[in-house]
Amino acid sequence: MAGQQSQSRPQVVIIGGGFGGLHAARALKRAPVDVTLIDRRNHHLFQPLLYQVATGGLSPANIASPLRGILHRQQNCRILLAEATGFDPAAKRLLLADGEIAYDTLIVAAGARSTWFGHDDWQDDAPGLKSLPDAVKLRERILRAFEMAERETNPDSRRQWLTFVVVGGGPTGVEMAGALSELARHTLRHDFHRIDPTEARIILVDAEPRVLGGFPEKLSASAARSLERLGVVVRTQTLADEIHADRVVLRSGEDRETIATRTVVWAAGVQAVPLGRKLAEATGAETDRGGRVIVQPDLTLPGHPDILVLGDLANCTGADGRPLPGLAPVAIQQGRYAARLIINRLKGRETPAFQYRDLGAMATIGRRSAVATFRGWSIQGFAAWLAWLFIHLMQLVGFENRLLVLLQWAWNYLTFSRSARLMTLYEDGSRPPEHPAGSVSEKTATS
Amino acid sequence: MAGQQSQSRPQVVIIGGGFGGLHAARALKRAPVDVTLIDRRNHHLFQPLLYQVATGGLSPANIASPLRGILHRQQNCRILLAEATGFDPAAKRLLLADGEIAYDTLIVAAGARSTWFGHDDWQDDAPGLKSLPDAVKLRERILRAFEMAERETNPDSRRQWLTFVVVGGGPTGVEMAGALSELARHTLRHDFHRIDPTEARIILVDAEPRVLGGFPEKLSASAARSLERLGVVVRTQTLADEIHADRVVLRSGEDRETIATRTVVWAAGVQAVPLGRKLAEATGAETDRGGRVIVQPDLTLPGHPDILVLGDLANCTGADGRPLPGLAPVAIQQGRYAARLIINRLKGRETPAFQYRDLGAMATIGRRSAVATFRGWSIQGFAAWLAWLFIHLMQLVGFENRLLVLLQWAWNYLTFSRSARLMTLYEDGSRPPEHPAGSVSEKTATS
Repeated sequence: MAGQQSQSRPQVVIIGGGFGGLHAARALKRAPVDVTLIDRRNHHLFQPLLYQVATGGLSPANIASPLRGILHRQQNCRILLAEATGFDPAAKRLLLADGEIAYDTLIVAAGARSTWFGHDDWQDDAPGLKSLPDAVKLRERILRAFEMAERETNPDSRRQWLTFVVVGGGPTGVEMAGALSELARHTLRHDFHRIDPTEARIILVDAEPRVLGGFPEKLSASAARSLERLGVVVRTQTLADEIHADRVVLRSGEDRETIATRTVVWAAGVQAVPLGRKLAEATGAETDRGGRVIVQPDLTLPGHPDILVLGDLANCTGADGRPLPGLAPVAIQQGRYAARLIINRLKGRETPAFQYRDLGAMATIGRRSAVATFRGWSIQGFAAWLAWLFIHLMQLVGFENRLLVLLQWAWNYLTFSRSARLMTLYEDGSRPPEHPAGSVSEKTATS
Repeated sequence: MAGQQSQSRPQVVIIGGGFGGLHAARALKRAPVDVTLIDRRNHHLFQPLLYQVATGGLSPANIASPLRGILHRQQNCRILLAEATGFDPAAKRLLLADGEIAYDTLIVAAGARSTWFGHDDWQDDAPGLKSLPDAVKLRERILRAFEMAERETNPDSRRQWLTFVVVGGGPTGVEMAGALSELARHTLRHDFHRIDPTEARIILVDAEPRVLGGFPEKLSASAARSLERLGVVVRTQTLADEIHADRVVLRSGEDRETIATRTVVWAAGVQAVPLGRKLAEATGAETDRGGRVIVQPDLTLPGHPDILVLGDLANCTGADGRPLPGLAPVAIQQGRYAARLIINRLKGRETPAFQYRDLGAMATIGRRSAVATFRGWSIQGFAAWLAWLFIHLMQLVGFENRLLVLLQWAWNYLTFSRSARLMTLYEDGSRPPEHPAGSVSEKTATS
C-alpha cells in the first residue's frame, strides 16, 4: 500500500511493462526509491516471437509472463493495471483513465503499434502483429483460410483462400512469410483431403530494393534465397496500393497487379503510440514523423529532467547520427540506463550520455536457416539459426517458459507439428467477418 | 476429395469431435467406410481440465488438439469445419449452415452446454465453463477481480472484488473452488501490495445436502473437508435465488442471504445442445427434460437404425435403470460401440446392446488431495490425487501435450506458480463490462 511506503522516498513511475520499462524497474531493485509500473496489460510480452503464436507453433502463455510474477520479489515495486491518458508535468502528475498518480521521476516506455500509413481502412483486411490478441486473431484467420479452401469447390476461389500476402520485408515480415510457408508445406501437408496445402502461395512484398533493409546486403540476399527455397515469392520494390477483403493491388513502378487473396498480414510499419504526442504537447518536446518523442542524449526531455522517454516511443540519436532502431536491445539498454541515471542523481553524480552498444540483429527463415549480424560479423545458415535459437531462449523471461519453448521447438522441429494451431474465437456460433455466407456448398460433396 | 473416394463405400457422418465422436471416428479406422467428422471447432477439447485454464495453470493449447492433427493419418476420415443445423432423415441428409451432406449412417455426438435453468439472464454474471473461450473469459474475469481489489480504496468494495461464488457442487464446481483457493492463497500471495489475496473468500454453493452427490457419502465428506482446509466455504442445501453483477442472493430453506461479489462461476448444470431437439422433431424420437435424446439399447433412434446418438446428447439407460451420467468414459465407450455396430452391420452380424463398464469417477481438490471411485472402491487423499494425475495425463490426446502438461504441473506444484495467468481480452482498450467506470481512484495513492 502506498500509504505504508516511506513518503520520503522518491517516487518513480514507469509507463509500460515492455522491454524498456521492465528492465528499468528491475535495475531499480536496490535503489532507495518506490517504483510504480503501470501497464494496460498484466503481462510482459516477448514480441519477437509473436509470429510463432500467429502460426500455431507456440501458445500465448509461452511468450508472455505475468508482470506481478516477474516482479513479485521486488519489494520496492508495485504494479498498477491502468491506462495512462495524459500528463501534468507542472504538478508532476500522470493522468490515468480512472485517476492520477504523482511522480518524482517519470519513465515513459509505452512502445509502438502498427501503422497503415494513413490507410487505417486497411486495418481489418491487413491486420498487424503487435499484441497477443493480434496474434490469436491472425492465427484464426490463417487456419480458417485453409479450412475454407478445403470446403471450396471453385478452383479460383480455392486459390484465393490459399494465397497469403505479407506486406513488409523487415524481420517480422520475413519470419512470418517463412513460418507461413512451413505451416503450409510441412505441418498441414497431410491434414486436408481436397486441397494440397503445398499449393499455398506466400507472397512477401517490400517497397525497398531488398528484404531486411537494415541488414548487410549479403544477408539480405541470403534471406531472399532461403525464402525462395521455402517457396515464398519475394516481390521487392513493390508497394501495396490497395487492400480489400478479397484482393490486393500491388504496384511496382508503373505496373499494377491484382492478386486475389483472403489473407493479408501487415508487417510494413510501426509508429509510436498516441501517448507520445500527448507527452510532447504537455512538455513542449518534439516528435518525429513516426510520432516518436525526440529525447536528449540522456533520454530526458528538454526542460524536463524528471521525464525520460525510451524504447520504441523515443527518437534517440545513435552514434551514426540517425535515430536508434526500434529493437529490443535498444529498449533494454535504455531501461537500464534510465535506472542508472536515477540512482546517480540520488548520489549527486552526473551520468554520461546514453550510448547504444550494438549487439547486432537477427532474423530466422524457417527451419535451420537464419541471418544475423554480431559486432560487424555476418552469420547465415545453420550457425545463425542456432544462435537465434539460443539468444531468443535466453531472452525469454522465466525458466519455465524457456523450458516449455525449448521443448515445443524441439517437438515442432522433429515432427513438423504445430500443436497450438487452435481456432477458438468464433465458437459461440458468430460468423467471422471473412466468412462469405453462401459461397460454400457441400451439396456436391458426396455426389 | 470426396469425388476421389469410392462411392460404393458406406458414408458415415459424425457430428462432434468430442470424446464420443472422436473415438467413433478412430474406431472406424480400418472399416471399409468413408468417415466425415463435422465440428464447429477445429480441435478436440479435453473438457475435464478446463478449470485449470480458467485459473491460469495451463494454456488452452495444452488441453486441445487440432482434429486434423489427431486424424491426419486416418485415410478414410475427412474433417469438415461446419455447423450442423438440421436433419432430413427421409433423404438421409444432414443440413449444414452452408450446405448439406448425405450419409448412410449418422452419429450425433454434439454434446452439452451450460444451462441456467430458465435464468438465461444470469449468463453474463455467472458464466459457465464448457469451451476454451469460456475458460479464457473466466480467467480474465478472475484475474481482473484481484487487480480491481488492488486499486480499490473502499474496504467493502475490496471485499466484494475478493469474494468468489461457485454455484454447483459437482466435480467441476469442486475443482474450480479448490483451484481458485490455491490461486489466491499460493500463487498470488506475494503479488499485490495493498490487498492480501489470502483474504479472498470462496463460497461453493450446492442445492444438494452434500457436494459431489454422485460419489459415495464418505468421499463427499472427504471432499468437503479438503475444501474447508483450503478455506472454501461450502454451503450445501443452498440455492442461488438471484444473481446480479454485484451480488448473489442465496437461499437455504426460508433463509435468504445477500453476498456482495463481482465474480460468480456457474457450474450447476448442463443440458444437451439444441440440435438434440431438432433431431427428435425430425425423427419422432423423444427427449428428456435436459433435452437429451432418448436412445434405444443400441444407441439408435426408434425407426431410424441409421442414426445413433451418444455422449452427453444421449439419454441411454444404464444397468441401474437410470440414464448414464454425462462423463467422458461413457462417451468414449459409446463412440467405440457405435463403430463396432457399424462394422458388425457391414458383416451382417448382430451387436448386443451397449453396456457401460463403470470405471469410476474422480475429482481433485487442490494440491495433493482428490477423491476417486474405482470398481466399487473409494480412494481419497494423496493416492487418489496421484491416480487423478496419471489418468488425466494418459487421457490427454498427443504425447506432446502430455509432456507439456506434466512439466507445467510439476512446475506449478513445486513453485506454486501458474504462469498462464494472462489477461488478453481487453488489450484493444475496450473496457470489460465488469469495470465500474469512476469507482476506482488513484488520487490518494501517493498522498
